Amino acid sequence: MTAAPRPGAPVPSVDPRTGAVRAHPAREAGPADVDRAVTAAHHTLDALADRPRRAALLHTAADLLDAARPEILAAADAETALGETRLTGELARTTHQLRTFAETAADGGYLDVRIDRADPATGRPDLRRTKTPLGVAAVFAAGNFPLAFSVPGGDTASALAAGCPVVVKAHPGHPGTGELCARLLRRAAERVGLPAEILTTVHGLAAGTRLVQHPLTAAIGFTGSLRGGRALHDLAAARPHPIPFHGELGSLNPVLVTERAAATRAEEIGAGLAASFTLGQGQYCTKPGLVLVPAGHPALERAAVKAAAAADAAPLLDPRIRDSYLTGAAHRAALPGVETLLPPGPAPTPGAPLAVRPGILAVAATDLHDDLLDECFGPLTVLVRYRDRADLHTALTRLPGTLTATLHLAPDEPPTETRPLLALLTPLAGRLVLNTWPTGVTVTPAMHHGGPYPAATTPTTSVGTSAIHRWLRPVTYQDTPPELLPAELRD
Amino acid sequence: MTAAPRPGAPVPSVDPRTGAVRAHPAREAGPADVDRAVTAAHHTLDALADRPRRAALLHTAADLLDAARPEILAAADAETALGETRLTGELARTTHQLRTFAETAADGGYLDVRIDRADPATGRPDLRRTKTPLGVAAVFAAGNFPLAFSVPGGDTASALAAGCPVVVKAHPGHPGTGELCARLLRRAAERVGLPAEILTTVHGLAAGTRLVQHPLTAAIGFTGSLRGGRALHDLAAARPHPIPFHGELGSLNPVLVTERAAATRAEEIGAGLAASFTLGQGQYCTKPGLVLVPAGHPALERAAVKAAAAADAAPLLDPRIRDSYLTGAAHRAALPGVETLLPPGPAPTPGAPLAVRPGILAVAATDLHDDLLDECFGPLTVLVRYRDRADLHTALTRLPGTLTATLHLAPDEPPTETRPLLALLTPLAGRLVLNTWPTGVTVTPAMHHGGPYPAATTPTTSVGTSAIHRWLRPVTYQDTPPELLPAELRD
Repeated sequence: MTAAPRPGAPVPSVDPRTGAVRAHPAREAGPADVDRAVTAAHHTLDALADRPRRAALLHTAADLLDAARPEILAAADAETALGETRLTGELARTTHQLRTFAETAADGGYLDVRIDRADPATGRPDLRRTKTPLGVAAVFAAGNFPLAFSVPGGDTASALAAGCPVVVKAHPGHPGTGELCARLLRRAAERVGLPAEILTTVHGLAAGTRLVQHPLTAAIGFTGSLRGGRALHDLAAARPHPIPFHGELGSLNPVLVTERAAATRAEEIGAGLAASFTLGQGQYCTKPGLVLVPAGHPALERAAVKAAAAADAAPLLDPRIRDSYLTGAAHRAALPGVETLLPPGPAPTPGAPLAVRPGILAVAATDLHDDLLDECFGPLTVLVRYRDRADLHTALTRLPGTLTATLHLAPDEPPTETRPLLALLTPLAGRLVLNTWPTGVTVTPAMHHGGPYPAATTPTTSVGTSAIHRWLRPVTYQDTPPELLPAELRD
Repeated sequence: MTAAPRPGAPVPSVDPRTGAVRAHPAREAGPADVDRAVTAAHHTLDALADRPRRAALLHTAADLLDAARPEILAAADAETALGETRLTGELARTTHQLRTFAETAADGGYLDVRIDRADPATGRPDLRRTKTPLGVAAVFAAGNFPLAFSVPGGDTASALAAGCPVVVKAHPGHPGTGELCARLLRRAAERVGLPAEILTTVHGLAAGTRLVQHPLTAAIGFTGSLRGGRALHDLAAARPHPIPFHGELGSLNPVLVTERAAATRAEEIGAGLAASFTLGQGQYCTKPGLVLVPAGHPALERAAVKAAAAADAAPLLDPRIRDSYLTGAAHRAALPGVETLLPPGPAPTPGAPLAVRPGILAVAATDLHDDLLDECFGPLTVLVRYRDRADLHTALTRLPGTLTATLHLAPDEPPTETRPLLALLTPLAGRLVLNTWPTGVTVTPAMHHGGPYPAATTPTTSVGTSAIHRWLRPVTYQDTPPELLPAELRD
């Protein structure tokens, strides 16, 4: 336990490949910094009420981010080691999100305008409903998506689209990337005639706490760990005026493989699982972390081990996450009845002394320890072998809420048998995946990225255009003269 | 402070006109009773998944309530003293709500189905989104609406429409009415082939706490006091798995009268205010409890006092509410600078020894005590006299979140002057009312009944068809064979 950094202390940017401090791109925010950021953001609410200008802001931000691609990719790779291919894709997704929300703001359909005209016969008044921004949004950047779920990410884009200014609690894993993106977003604001204070970053754990407790903070978006997220959720609920806390706190993403699927698709499922749980070094929130497989099907297990063993060793997002992965994997491997099929562990390479290799554990369903129901962030998955339906049912009832649940079937299984399995998975998950893998979250209208606690703390999505509703509340105007109505409510 | 009643203890039904115990129509629920109710409700989720049957349930419930009108009106009037006219209207509204939600369930549009077909060119999977019920809904009946916000009320109707079984914490002010309505709703369930356990009532404060904490309770609807509601909100947030708490915890419903409105419409506004704040003995959640009036306009104040003084004395909902009203009004009247324009107090009549009369207080904006910003339930309103814009701004910034905010203008006031006033009220309220009064909540699509805390704890509505969204969460099916999809997601 080290002492908390003082306000103004330099924030280090660490090379995850080596653990070396690269630079100090930001400073720890003190209480006065947080107050200044939130208050200044609050004062931009009127300027942000201009919907076309918000659309222009988001388009311009996307353009500036695209134009700075080489610089952004270099900064993000230096701080996360995610590599150029992945980060190129993530930046494209990020600017796509910004442009999608620009169109959402411009279109205005999200306001769900409803007009009930007066009815003199029944005495019914004229009622017109629209939606209004909640106020300043506090956004907590995620470690595993330095762009798409961080400073310029989905929470920021959806909040700005809704008309809410944003204060971002930057992530310590990529402070330089966060500052770079914040400068571009603030420049975009000034280009379209909005105050730069529509977005400010603050750094440091204490600043995050202050941000949640600030009287002018009106809603919170969070993607991160169960422990940290739950603490902030509780602070938000304990405020004199509680505010919405939209948190994604972790997900096990269970997979259920039927006996017949294992019998007919062992190679395909084993290889697919390996590709999915090692993708991005297992640092996706949708990584399949627990796989219910029928006992006595070694072909599937062998296929998974073979494919995962062939994956390149690679560093994790930062040394702290690396430590958690190694400790967490070792702890799980040592639990009673747990068998190590592929040993997780350090795997230093010349360019990355901190690299690790993936691991696969296995355990009988009857030995399923509670600690195996907690997400282990990183490239680890646990095969849980069930012997019969009773084993399966018992295990499923113990699973926590999750972003996704996946079901692998044989091509010819009768729906009378498979429908009940899907019905058992449905109460657990925000997305049900059939015969494929949960990693990879398409940004389309039908996507839902959320789920029962702890996958999400509210029944909302953080991905896709519906995310705008996290930052809005309805407001109805009764018998209001046209000249006083918001433009969208006039005849 | 009396000891908490034991489980099984008889629950008294009290005549609010006299304070006499009429009967003991129910029993205090113990922990085992709450567990039994919630568990039995949970087991009806599969049966309730049948949407057409839910619609039939709600239609049948409405029919049975209508058929039992004389019995229901007698029970409710004996326990609330609200009178036949009001209760006839409330029952009509209640059955209208049930039928509206029957149509909402049958129609299915609330599921907001979205289908993104697979795109082999980009590798995009087939994604289909619908909504799924959260689980058992805990509904806390309101004291001031024994029907429309109680056992057969909007929370129950919207939860059942969504597919969520309901356990109602009955209100101690009308336990007999609650039991009668519960019997009719359970009979309706059996008539349409659903288990009676889709709705159960529990009685007692301790039962309410247990209900919020039960592991199988999935969401909560509450209408009641700030103190009680906040305690339950905090319990819901502190659960191992927090659940949505949709609470309406009180509302001041401020009214702002401009100088020119007071100069030109004094009689009309004064009389209108009196009618609104004494309606139903001031026991509406939308009662105007604080009225910002320009100083030096005695005509308006006189008109309000004259009209309110002419109102009949009447009992309040129960002796406890009567005590709170009398104590609260006396406390406010004794605050520094407060002037009593119409003295509130007991006003016994031959048929109702517990009847009270309405009160009007007045105070300078510069003397506005914090205690005047708390709702005083019952027929009391406070005139706050402002001298200038500075007074007005200062007072407005101190007002808490509220269900409604009302603005009274003169016919010819320029929008350049009135628009900023409306802009000051908008952040406070869920509904803005122009030149009329906030009491009376039409059940139509454009109605919003909610608002910033403490008016509501979530940005949702408890009135109108949108209330169904309180009990649902989205769920997406990826690459799912048609035979495994919910019916609404098939091609």
